[in-house]
Amino acid sequence: MKEEFSFNFGGFSSRVFIRENLPSLDEVIPEKRRFLLVCDRNTEFLARKIASGSPLCVLPPGENAKEWAQVETILRCAREAGLGRDGVFIGLGGGVVTDLTAFAASVYMRGGSLRLVPTTLLAMADAALGGKTGFDLFGIKNLAGTFFPAETIYMCRQALDSLPETEWKSGMAEIIKTAIIDGEDFFSLVNSPSVKDNIMECVSRSAAVKGRIVEADPRETADSGNGGRALLNLGHTFGHALESALGLGRITHGEAVAWGTVRAAGLGKVLGITPPERAEAIGGVFKKYGYETAAPHPLLKDNTEFMKALEGDKKRKGGKPRFIVPAGQGAIQVYLEKGQEHLPEAIIRGSYS
Amino acid sequence: MKEEFSFNFGGFSSRVFIRENLPSLDEVIPEKRRFLLVCDRNTEFLARKIASGSPLCVLPPGENAKEWAQVETILRCAREAGLGRDGVFIGLGGGVVTDLTAFAASVYMRGGSLRLVPTTLLAMADAALGGKTGFDLFGIKNLAGTFFPAETIYMCRQALDSLPETEWKSGMAEIIKTAIIDGEDFFSLVNSPSVKDNIMECVSRSAAVKGRIVEADPRETADSGNGGRALLNLGHTFGHALESALGLGRITHGEAVAWGTVRAAGLGKVLGITPPERAEAIGGVFKKYGYETAAPHPLLKDNTEFMKALEGDKKRKGGKPRFIVPAGQGAIQVYLEKGQEHLPEAIIRGSYS
Repeated sequence: MKEEFSFNFGGFSSRVFIRENLPSLDEVIPEKRRFLLVCDRNTEFLARKIASGSPLCVLPPGENAKEWAQVETILRCAREAGLGRDGVFIGLGGGVVTDLTAFAASVYMRGGSLRLVPTTLLAMADAALGGKTGFDLFGIKNLAGTFFPAETIYMCRQALDSLPETEWKSGMAEIIKTAIIDGEDFFSLVNSPSVKDNIMECVSRSAAVKGRIVEADPRETADSGNGGRALLNLGHTFGHALESALGLGRITHGEAVAWGTVRAAGLGKVLGITPPERAEAIGGVFKKYGYETAAPHPLLKDNTEFMKALEGDKKRKGGKPRFIVPAGQGAIQVYLEKGQEHLPEAIIRGSYS
Repeated sequence: MKEEFSFNFGGFSSRVFIRENLPSLDEVIPEKRRFLLVCDRNTEFLARKIASGSPLCVLPPGENAKEWAQVETILRCAREAGLGRDGVFIGLGGGVVTDLTAFAASVYMRGGSLRLVPTTLLAMADAALGGKTGFDLFGIKNLAGTFFPAETIYMCRQALDSLPETEWKSGMAEIIKTAIIDGEDFFSLVNSPSVKDNIMECVSRSAAVKGRIVEADPRETADSGNGGRALLNLGHTFGHALESALGLGRITHGEAVAWGTVRAAGLGKVLGITPPERAEAIGGVFKKYGYETAAPHPLLKDNTEFMKALEGDKKRKGGKPRFIVPAGQGAIQVYLEKGQEHLPEAIIRGSYS
């Protein structure tokens, strides 16, 4: 298992450490600069382990807290802690904490220093790596954000000890998604019965895949070829629309991604891109982990909101609806042509199977 | 006079046009993408000339409006106008409008497209060029911001037709400051009696100087040699502290910069860096334009707030107070050594002249 990675994301260098224990404060800030440690009430006990005597910036937990008011709280704490332009922001928590801390760091005096300690499987597999920061606005996920990769990221098995079962499940969806993008080896690993024992191996492979894709297309501007960073959105076009239509917080992000990835495989099958046996295997692995994979989704009573969210999806480019779908190997991006616009709605209705 | 510049600011390309008339909408957005035109109530009439039939995002005018609530207004307007990731933000106004629009553009879906039409001399000389965006928070100027250069910037003499006299004066201070950083030629131009007739020549030279400095050090990270982008802060360390101590809005930014530049020349003289005749000439040109140049400043009753603001200045690095002072030619950065820490306060008290 690879325990250390160095990536270059559009001029920002990011180092990732896969390890057993939480880092000490000296490891996180060897240069002993002024810092602010940001956590939420769920991760406060971990934060105290790292910086027992230091003032903490403790946010309310939950996706609902991912809003400007929390960014302002972090900025106020930073100001009160006397951080200058070279001050260090440490975000310790799930994706909400890491995204908010990273956004605040990116705008504080036009950019401080950022280090992250993701404490959920989802944040390790997704939010903490790759430089996307953001918060929700007007009910839209991450409508405001920046590109600001952390300098160092510590992914520690110890942090997962206290993780609730729902959080495991949520994180696994992103890992399975990444395995689908990667290839057979990684897919077999997530499909194996002992995955919890090998979880840091999954985290490490996931970081390798995501890091490689983001290095090649840090700001998701690639628009041709195999899709660049947009590949990581496999399952997210359908998934985000589902989250939006149900209202934020009704299902976890992982559940949305799992359901969305199965839909993407369905769309790929109809388009002749995803081999039927691969679509089957993808549905199978998500079902095995207990995800809802059926179309129509049992909680979705009305497709109007869903289709509106799908059309407003910020991943759309140049008018043609774009989707990421699994291919024979890995995943590719496709644009729907004239006459295919009805397909997404047919897919979520369950008209194809 | 040079009428077109192309700069590369840390990977972002910026083109500047110095011209007579406001651009048409087709000139600003030749590719006809979705856009949002942001202005304030003072520049609304100019905005209507450019985009007569389009919805505008009209902000309240004034430095007091440079806060998150206005950023949120711009983001809401952008969302309502249906801007996607490739949407274009056009900021038309003074520095508050251009800074706010640029910040909003930089965070909208993690970065839209930005074009600026500065309408004040100050915004042409300073805010619109070079990629600094921001807004005030907790009473601190630009505490939150990003680095996000505009793709195109139109500096048009026509926009200055309706500029109030106080705005001329405010802008001239930045132009004089830039001339001091540049050299004798430019300094003679701003010292000439017909400067208003040659104002676009001044704007063009100012853009050339600022662009060159920012290209060499886009994110103000240079910390050695002649000072990099920090050189542009000539007069700003003292000036910002004065603005802070008096309370935002009591004097214009230009008045603060003028007064601060004369103080910087005074500090340089005491340190043996600024030749006495140059310090004299610098004081003279600001006086000629009607700026308050005396120390102590007649509005500043108490130095405590001033010194607190000076010490909290975000331009400080690594503990040693840093100042930009005029040299025999141009300007350089200096760090105060042990035993010199009392100098700034002595300078603002007028203990040296």
